[in-house]
Amino acid sequence: MKLHTHLYAVIMAGGSGTRFWPLSRQLYPKQLLRIMGGETLIQQTMRRVLRCVPSKRVFISTTPVQADSIRFQLGEWKDALTDNFVIEPEARNTAPAIALAATELLRRDPYAIMLVLPADHVIKDHARFQAAVRLGTELACAGHLVTFGIKPIRPETGYGYIQPNLRVRLGGKGGLKGHPIARFVEKPDAATAARYLKSGNYFWNSGIFIWRARAIMEEVARHQPALARAMRWIAARAASRALEGRLAQVYRRLTPVSIDNGVMERSSRAAMIPVDFSWSDVGNWSSLEEVAPRNDAGNVVSGKVVDLDSRDSILYADQRLVATIGLSSMVVVDTPDATLVCPKARSQDVKKIVEILKKQGAPEHLEHRTVFRPWGSYTVLEEGPGYKVKRVTVNPGGRLSLQLHHQRSEHWVVIAGTARVTRGRRVFALRVGESTGIPKETRHRLENTGSHTLHIIEVQNGPYLGEDDIVRFQDDYGRGVKRVARRS
Amino acid sequence: MKLHTHLYAVIMAGGSGTRFWPLSRQLYPKQLLRIMGGETLIQQTMRRVLRCVPSKRVFISTTPVQADSIRFQLGEWKDALTDNFVIEPEARNTAPAIALAATELLRRDPYAIMLVLPADHVIKDHARFQAAVRLGTELACAGHLVTFGIKPIRPETGYGYIQPNLRVRLGGKGGLKGHPIARFVEKPDAATAARYLKSGNYFWNSGIFIWRARAIMEEVARHQPALARAMRWIAARAASRALEGRLAQVYRRLTPVSIDNGVMERSSRAAMIPVDFSWSDVGNWSSLEEVAPRNDAGNVVSGKVVDLDSRDSILYADQRLVATIGLSSMVVVDTPDATLVCPKARSQDVKKIVEILKKQGAPEHLEHRTVFRPWGSYTVLEEGPGYKVKRVTVNPGGRLSLQLHHQRSEHWVVIAGTARVTRGRRVFALRVGESTGIPKETRHRLENTGSHTLHIIEVQNGPYLGEDDIVRFQDDYGRGVKRVARRS
Repeated sequence: MKLHTHLYAVIMAGGSGTRFWPLSRQLYPKQLLRIMGGETLIQQTMRRVLRCVPSKRVFISTTPVQADSIRFQLGEWKDALTDNFVIEPEARNTAPAIALAATELLRRDPYAIMLVLPADHVIKDHARFQAAVRLGTELACAGHLVTFGIKPIRPETGYGYIQPNLRVRLGGKGGLKGHPIARFVEKPDAATAARYLKSGNYFWNSGIFIWRARAIMEEVARHQPALARAMRWIAARAASRALEGRLAQVYRRLTPVSIDNGVMERSSRAAMIPVDFSWSDVGNWSSLEEVAPRNDAGNVVSGKVVDLDSRDSILYADQRLVATIGLSSMVVVDTPDATLVCPKARSQDVKKIVEILKKQGAPEHLEHRTVFRPWGSYTVLEEGPGYKVKRVTVNPGGRLSLQLHHQRSEHWVVIAGTARVTRGRRVFALRVGESTGIPKETRHRLENTGSHTLHIIEVQNGPYLGEDDIVRFQDDYGRGVKRVARRS
Repeated sequence: MKLHTHLYAVIMAGGSGTRFWPLSRQLYPKQLLRIMGGETLIQQTMRRVLRCVPSKRVFISTTPVQADSIRFQLGEWKDALTDNFVIEPEARNTAPAIALAATELLRRDPYAIMLVLPADHVIKDHARFQAAVRLGTELACAGHLVTFGIKPIRPETGYGYIQPNLRVRLGGKGGLKGHPIARFVEKPDAATAARYLKSGNYFWNSGIFIWRARAIMEEVARHQPALARAMRWIAARAASRALEGRLAQVYRRLTPVSIDNGVMERSSRAAMIPVDFSWSDVGNWSSLEEVAPRNDAGNVVSGKVVDLDSRDSILYADQRLVATIGLSSMVVVDTPDATLVCPKARSQDVKKIVEILKKQGAPEHLEHRTVFRPWGSYTVLEEGPGYKVKRVTVNPGGRLSLQLHHQRSEHWVVIAGTARVTRGRRVFALRVGESTGIPKETRHRLENTGSHTLHIIEVQNGPYLGEDDIVRFQDDYGRGVKRVARRS
């Protein structure tokens, strides 16, 4: 059941991925994780909004480095979403991201109503979510900037709180009511949080909003004039090719600011609906137990775990074996290149580990051994002096760019599917158990023209094996192509 | 300084490798581990005994599955040790192993004196060890079965204790004395162990012995007549080729029994020297801290570990990253295919994990992803349906058997060194960055004729990829070769 013909959903998918390390990475944030089994958080979010709007009215706000992975995960809705990615050159917190999405919506529909929601939250009751969106849409039509307030269940000090004016009722529907917001409170101390919990007058700020795109832009103009100016500049050039390169320049000058701090707290139009669905922002490993099923011993267990006598712990393995004995309220997370072990109570310090790794330049903070590309993915199986071994996966119909490397040769052995290989001037098929070698300085291309996924093992040899030793001559996905003199 | 012209060392290297899992495996026991940095335990043991006997009088007692790895690790003394491996067809506890070694020594030297010592203990003071062996040798010459007693430093319930008769002195030298043994006590309960510790009259049984080979065989004959009969049968056929196949049959019928329980406790010739060197059997992960250096926070740290605020813990990484936060008295051990997390106090339960894995048929209890062979080693980088990827390392001068596979093809890419490849009737060199394919049913061989180590990446394709799909036509290391009809 769709709610309103001008209602659009904007899924905020630019998260930074530090708090669920090592499962999340800077280039592979929490929204892309399958942390409760089944679908990933962004896939769950997509299904949730599809109860409110059709897929062609869903927009994804993200950054260039994450867009490929998201397109891959939302492949089921590929056609509807093709032109619905609002890509920021870099993340500048939520106010610029929301303003950019609003600007794009207004270009398409001056009456657009925006449901803005993070890609990486868990909401359990879809019907109640839908009811809240329904009321939110009504209030948005009336000009309010609506946020969803969550009834606190613990004295959380990590969230922002909202105090609505419960004596004033802006509207009601399906058992829910809307109220004007009396004030916002940033992360309180423990005593204050306990008082808020007891009072019943304070709600957690969920980060889910509904408003008319025009209304939020009016408030941006009022409270963040520089941001509004930048958006007008962008809007004037939206259809032009000249925008592409200059958008990054404009963006670099924007002040990073959150929509709460920069607009909502300053606006007289802010409203809140106390919602009644179960919600979690799954903010760190210890909050996983709010949403994932526990076994009899209170453990959340995933993957290849052999355990003796542990309780109340999060035991997260993948394909490698993790053996645990007698743990109590611990977090153990194992990935192909990194393992985390800490007490649940220290989960919030995982971001400190990520900071250390960042300073060290350790690749384990940045990305996984498996990296997604528009044509498929690759997994680094091993690297050592002078060589690197990858498993490369190419989706049906996918093809890598026509490219060459200056410093490395490559050997490909097909282990599943059939490849079409371009090597120099030759084009030929490569089947399971067949191989070919690509010398350095030789133009080559790998394609999957079949209907099954293609898997190859690639062995690279050379003194330098960085991903940046690549010259692209043609690319289906618009990635930087070298202009070469053509014979006339 | 060598101690006696008839003194031989027998290093007992048949350990089962359950208690240091996942670093140790059934086929890769503790003695092969570099658990304190520097050399492995068996290498340290070798250096220790070389202060007492020359290398050609060192013997290694082990089983067939471990012999290759041991030969590899003791490669420095390869020539001296070539004929000094006493290989039991299967492990039957220490009495048969010692009896077999004694039988072999007697064949070579009827006056042989045996120093028997486990390959996987840590002893810190070489000079005091040497002094103890010197006195032990004297007492052995006088006909005693000598064991080294360790002064207890904690009420350990996991060891056997020895009560010597301290009023009788069998001899003395270099500040040490020997005494007859009054009694052996198997693992005591905690209260008894505490009483022993306090009394000063009880010593830990170190498992290190010295005796004349003839003397121990006399006592075996007295207390384990079936074992003695088997050894006489073996001795009578020692030089004959017929022994090989039948040794396994003889062995299978032997009762597994320890030398302590089966012989020493029953013998009237047992003597003990209270020794004064620092000793550890490094019996499980928590005992590692007795021998490995700790940092200021009391942690034993190895490999790629990033830690925040942990103390008194054992943090053992290898090449993968391990991040730990706020651990206290924990053990974290990470290997390429398995990770262990447990409190130190539960270290002894690691063997229960290994039992579970064994029952499940999980490969992680049996061997590492890296497996040693007489010609080098291989590491499984990845396996999946229809394919397996290995890095194969061939030592200079090493070559694999001339072989074929019925069910798989192989591709080799050289990443370091130069290979000599036999493929069908062709023999050719393969250099870095070059590759070749070996179809199934094709005879092939990989050799390293160069002076540097050869590394290749091998990609296998086929419906069945087990190590047992191999037909060997020639093998340098005497492994099962198929007899094939030759053209006359």
